[in-house]
Amino acid sequence: MNKREIAFIGSGNVAWHLARAMDRAGHTVSQIISRKEEHAFELARQFGAYYGTDLSRVYDTVDLCLICVGDDDLESVVTSMPPIQAVVAHTCGPKAMNVLGVKFRQYGVFYPLQSFSKLRPVDMLQVPIMLEASSNAAYSVMRDVADAISNKVSDVSSNDRLKYHLAAVFANNFVNHLYHTSERYLQENQLNFDYLRPIIEETAMKIKSLDPADAQTGPARRGDDHTIERHLKMLQDDPDLRQLYQLFSDRITKQFNG
Amino acid sequence: MNKREIAFIGSGNVAWHLARAMDRAGHTVSQIISRKEEHAFELARQFGAYYGTDLSRVYDTVDLCLICVGDDDLESVVTSMPPIQAVVAHTCGPKAMNVLGVKFRQYGVFYPLQSFSKLRPVDMLQVPIMLEASSNAAYSVMRDVADAISNKVSDVSSNDRLKYHLAAVFANNFVNHLYHTSERYLQENQLNFDYLRPIIEETAMKIKSLDPADAQTGPARRGDDHTIERHLKMLQDDPDLRQLYQLFSDRITKQFNG
Repeated sequence: MNKREIAFIGSGNVAWHLARAMDRAGHTVSQIISRKEEHAFELARQFGAYYGTDLSRVYDTVDLCLICVGDDDLESVVTSMPPIQAVVAHTCGPKAMNVLGVKFRQYGVFYPLQSFSKLRPVDMLQVPIMLEASSNAAYSVMRDVADAISNKVSDVSSNDRLKYHLAAVFANNFVNHLYHTSERYLQENQLNFDYLRPIIEETAMKIKSLDPADAQTGPARRGDDHTIERHLKMLQDDPDLRQLYQLFSDRITKQFNG
Repeated sequence: MNKREIAFIGSGNVAWHLARAMDRAGHTVSQIISRKEEHAFELARQFGAYYGTDLSRVYDTVDLCLICVGDDDLESVVTSMPPIQAVVAHTCGPKAMNVLGVKFRQYGVFYPLQSFSKLRPVDMLQVPIMLEASSNAAYSVMRDVADAISNKVSDVSSNDRLKYHLAAVFANNFVNHLYHTSERYLQENQLNFDYLRPIIEETAMKIKSLDPADAQTGPARRGDDHTIERHLKMLQDDPDLRQLYQLFSDRITKQFNG
């Protein structure tokens, strides 16, 4: 393995998991720069790395500078950074690579397709990492680092990455909203959401071995109009929820019985 | 433990898991009657139980007869059964208990809130089992059997069980439809759904320790109108999918930023 030196901009959930995985894999994490000094310190102390809040202090001598900030903050961070010579990559799924081209000579995207939380351990080897680079030299550095932490590294263009990100909005953000929706429905009826946790887990685990089409069940899948009608009647005092139920039932019915 | 003797009507996913769990727990599964003789045989042979297809042959001497058939088939199965004296319970979430009152003297509902597949092992101890019974005597038999296989047995009325079932339609059927939706979107764009499997699993696993509201992320959660607009533009050739995206984004925006 080519041992690489890496600086991080950002100290949130993504930086937390990537930096720790890279350190464990034998790379050197030498710097954490973040708006939140305390978070930078918490992460940097684990590797004896420099920490600070001043973007102008970013090392130009590292092999790779990873910008791990929220999608909305990427442009302003780039604007505030000096034009370093190191390879600079961002980790924002929905942001094009060329956001970095305005400032840096060698750049790329290093997108881990996962939802990270500091408190939850992640098996980084299973996390898909999507790479895109402005040059072979930049790619080589990023690939060394990515291969050291994940078994699922692939090359994905900005255009395709946007589509993966959009698909993940459906499979992650919108799925979570359905969890939230069923929780609120049960709370409004003084019932206990905890009873749904096992089926929520099983629904996701099935997708590890089954295609979603084969895993589809329920009244709309069976064409059971009687149950659908009764459910719609149960929701008659909540027009928004009724609309959501109707839309999903129509979509599933159309796919399987249409 | 009071050892109970149990007959099953049905040999599908629910009967498969319940009968095996009851046998393992020390109860006696003495009979499997099913439209599908081969399935009845496959299950019955595991306990040396009687198997067959004729509902008129159901044992009247068992402690409990569990009707594990599809929701749509329950009424016709009840109609075809003889009026046995044993406690008779069905396992259909959305069906009222009194469906059984027309024929049987002692009856109830034994509803395991989980999505079962024969090929997937289930930790039955963690499966919520919702009980309802027509009498204390019927309840006592059902409770003996339920407590032997699950740590999450509770008493739930037909009315509340209907609501749990409806909430599970959102958290299971509709969630799976979102998986299916993102898979088709990626396929239509010649992209690989496998990359989403880790984030799908993590999205569900987070709900074991977080409230759905706290786990919500994404552009609508952040009020990132710019990304939402771009996503809608990416979906402009697919009005149905665009409508689904818009509806979810509006709902999440309203909850968190409204």
